[in-house]
Amino acid sequence: MSDYGSLASRVRRKSLLDKVRSAEDCIEFFKPGMDLGWSGFTPAGYPKAVPIALADYVEKNNLQGKMKFNLFIGASVGAETENRWAELDMIDRRWPYQTGKNIAKGINEGRIRMGDKHLSLFAQDLGYGFYTPKIDIAIIEVSAVNADGSLVPTTSCGVIGEILMIADKIILEVNTGQPSFEGMHDCLIPRNPPHREPLLICKADDRIGSSAFPCDPDKIIAVVESKYRDKGRAFAEMDDTSEAIAGHIMQFFADEVKAGRLPENLLPLQSGVGSIANAVVGGLAKGPFSNLNVFTEVLQDTMLDLFDSGKLRFASSCSLSLSETPGFPRFFDNWDKYADKIVLRPLSISNAPEPIRRLGCIAMNTPVEFDIYAHANSTLVGGTRMINGIGGSGDFLRNAYLSIMHTPSVRPSKTDPTGITCVVPKAPHIDHTEHDLDVLVTEQGLADLRGLAPKDRAQKLINVCAHPDYRPILQDYFDRACKETLSKGVGHEPQLFDRCFKMQQNLAVNGTMKVKNWDIEVNLCE
Amino acid sequence: MSDYGSLASRVRRKSLLDKVRSAEDCIEFFKPGMDLGWSGFTPAGYPKAVPIALADYVEKNNLQGKMKFNLFIGASVGAETENRWAELDMIDRRWPYQTGKNIAKGINEGRIRMGDKHLSLFAQDLGYGFYTPKIDIAIIEVSAVNADGSLVPTTSCGVIGEILMIADKIILEVNTGQPSFEGMHDCLIPRNPPHREPLLICKADDRIGSSAFPCDPDKIIAVVESKYRDKGRAFAEMDDTSEAIAGHIMQFFADEVKAGRLPENLLPLQSGVGSIANAVVGGLAKGPFSNLNVFTEVLQDTMLDLFDSGKLRFASSCSLSLSETPGFPRFFDNWDKYADKIVLRPLSISNAPEPIRRLGCIAMNTPVEFDIYAHANSTLVGGTRMINGIGGSGDFLRNAYLSIMHTPSVRPSKTDPTGITCVVPKAPHIDHTEHDLDVLVTEQGLADLRGLAPKDRAQKLINVCAHPDYRPILQDYFDRACKETLSKGVGHEPQLFDRCFKMQQNLAVNGTMKVKNWDIEVNLCE
Repeated sequence: MSDYGSLASRVRRKSLLDKVRSAEDCIEFFKPGMDLGWSGFTPAGYPKAVPIALADYVEKNNLQGKMKFNLFIGASVGAETENRWAELDMIDRRWPYQTGKNIAKGINEGRIRMGDKHLSLFAQDLGYGFYTPKIDIAIIEVSAVNADGSLVPTTSCGVIGEILMIADKIILEVNTGQPSFEGMHDCLIPRNPPHREPLLICKADDRIGSSAFPCDPDKIIAVVESKYRDKGRAFAEMDDTSEAIAGHIMQFFADEVKAGRLPENLLPLQSGVGSIANAVVGGLAKGPFSNLNVFTEVLQDTMLDLFDSGKLRFASSCSLSLSETPGFPRFFDNWDKYADKIVLRPLSISNAPEPIRRLGCIAMNTPVEFDIYAHANSTLVGGTRMINGIGGSGDFLRNAYLSIMHTPSVRPSKTDPTGITCVVPKAPHIDHTEHDLDVLVTEQGLADLRGLAPKDRAQKLINVCAHPDYRPILQDYFDRACKETLSKGVGHEPQLFDRCFKMQQNLAVNGTMKVKNWDIEVNLCE
Repeated sequence: MSDYGSLASRVRRKSLLDKVRSAEDCIEFFKPGMDLGWSGFTPAGYPKAVPIALADYVEKNNLQGKMKFNLFIGASVGAETENRWAELDMIDRRWPYQTGKNIAKGINEGRIRMGDKHLSLFAQDLGYGFYTPKIDIAIIEVSAVNADGSLVPTTSCGVIGEILMIADKIILEVNTGQPSFEGMHDCLIPRNPPHREPLLICKADDRIGSSAFPCDPDKIIAVVESKYRDKGRAFAEMDDTSEAIAGHIMQFFADEVKAGRLPENLLPLQSGVGSIANAVVGGLAKGPFSNLNVFTEVLQDTMLDLFDSGKLRFASSCSLSLSETPGFPRFFDNWDKYADKIVLRPLSISNAPEPIRRLGCIAMNTPVEFDIYAHANSTLVGGTRMINGIGGSGDFLRNAYLSIMHTPSVRPSKTDPTGITCVVPKAPHIDHTEHDLDVLVTEQGLADLRGLAPKDRAQKLINVCAHPDYRPILQDYFDRACKETLSKGVGHEPQLFDRCFKMQQNLAVNGTMKVKNWDIEVNLCE
């Protein structure tokens, strides 16, 4: 392992060196029921040594279910921490986004009480004391501590500022296993209303904060050296479906530029995670647009490709969420090429409506499904089972210049390769409403919904986005719904409430959403 | 009628006096299918003379259905204009909010294609050319035209700026039937991204624009004198239910001040329209809080009472939407008392996330209904029938410091005085999601949902907000939904999709939402 500097060189407030202890020696600070705040965002910049030591302690002493904590973190963190904690039944409340099979299991079986909020609102509400009046212990991964006690983050800023606002005690994990990220951050602890300041970002690379978060050193109870790396996600594979979706979006951008509604270098891009997002970034790397800017919440490996293509001018994000390998080694080996083109900001800036709307971001995210009127489900499969959370999708989609969602038109069920349609009569759970979305895309095509009334949207989505297997089924439903409601004068947005979820029920019983017959003979009323 | 100054004294760009003509003489400018943009917002500041002349012309010449236009207006306008136009089948597309029985009929029978968008997004998207590349004719009511051609609005600013950005031709209605509102406005035409400027409002009374909207005089094709008054709404009556809701909210505010989460003069208030909003304003007029500020989109008569109480320091709004009588006469008779404590701003400022979030507004709005997980329906009765539109409720609720919705717990059906519950298992249409709302209130009580996971929210809403007649019914549904989904590991937010709308269906068939039995024996799948 390379030498990235000693602990002493990273801890510049020398009195704190008296507080250095091992992760195991921190266990004594933790009592069941405590409210904990961690640094970290979409497995980047989260504490590892202390959470792992606590998990080891619980496992070794068979304390499963007896050491439960409430976890407030900017977003998901590495599986070796929160997911392992869930496996060991160490989590009661968890806000506001998570990743991992065990934690999802705990949430959907009712053991873990997860709350799901737009990330920008989570950040401010945490600082306001809306979730808990105080954080008992904060665990913050840092690159360094300055002589004035201020904290230099690592690969994300998350909600460090808000945690510091309400934390009683603080444990620092100083990560000497990787370079210091000093200089890459734009740190700001917002003041609460009525004293909140404008966020004067007018370009993706404008900075409004400082290189570190102010912190009261008296609150720091321990300094732990850590050499763990972020367990970043591997690449999502691209496939023909993703490539087709990316192609539609590239064509749309070209058309918008031609129509004079987008500048030639587009507008700052926000792109979610996953194979479609990767295909879009890949399309941009090969495409005709240059001098691009990114204003987003997560930077993944593909963004390095976009930098290498010479098309990307600057990227603003909440986290640098590269893969453990090959992403981070590639980044560290080419530090000078990337570092001054990236700024990492706290969630309260990266996801704030103010800069997103002012800059006029182009937001692109993948839902579970959307319905014919353009309501989208981003969080609950089947309408009840939590996957990860809404994350920042609503922050960007609500405030973007163009709000785009993209998904394959179908997914396979257990028995039918096109058994699940992602275009449904009515979304069983709604995270983004018809009032928020401009453009919906599947590999079948791109539907520009701007300016369309609900029934015109429905017809366009059936024609353009639905898979051919489902077009006649959806058309039949839509025609019946129109017929039944318009004649009664209640048909602004026609639905049939006795069968709008028949596709979902058909899937449960017959393994496919291909409803054969929309007729129904049911008296639900007794 | 008082003398409020001659047309010549209001039209200070003298070359425009050559363009003075009667409303009837403007009819020749209009061709079927044109895109029209009007000033106006929640019946205030809208053009009257020309729209009424056009309606008279259509009626007299039996041109119903042969002179249809697309109408883009900040929000609803007076019934004598848009509702009469709907009656005469003169409207094809209508964005983004409307009021009136005939226009609602046209929308819900499928003749009028209404689009419904968050008002702040409507404003910017109109300016971007997303709905139409150009407005064929703008009709703007003004107090005056300055020598430089700039336009001084009357009782609202609406989307005048965005209309001027894309208008080909402009007709001005100079209203000499009331005082000039010059000096009350904060006019700004926003630049499009990537050149958009910060909106540097840090207090409700900060101003960032000028007293008039710049306008190219060459586009003005006619100047029409008008003496019509706004047909503002009458008072909504207060009742015991509204008073009880207001009482819960006053107590909540007092508790939040005590807990240190609100300053003693609260934070800038946004309050919707209707009897509950009036009761809340009435409660504030009698209550313990002083030096209040209002940052909202509509000011109604009750706001004059709040000024008179001495409790209200300043009010920022998009419109001054007083009643034709007694509201406006009272305002005009006491001009000096109110005028310098009010600023009227364009929708692109009044409803922008940037100032709403920075100031930390307290948003209060009335939905049609909400469900046990805190999703709210604001627009479609029964899930399909449009009432008015989402208006600015989402702009404020998404960005507020505290997001509050209030409704009676029940409404009467035709056969049962408590036949309709406003707390349902699943909202049949969703405009505001669980991710957006902090506090829900009925006359039964106030549920503070901050920090609660979905199942905890559901139990609290059933216990606190539901009407006693519906508590056991909702509890039974919730218990069954939990039982069925948690055992399968899919129960983050339990629902039963074969019966989640049984209350609505029961209402249609039996005239009440009091479901007797949640059992169901249906095979929906064939």
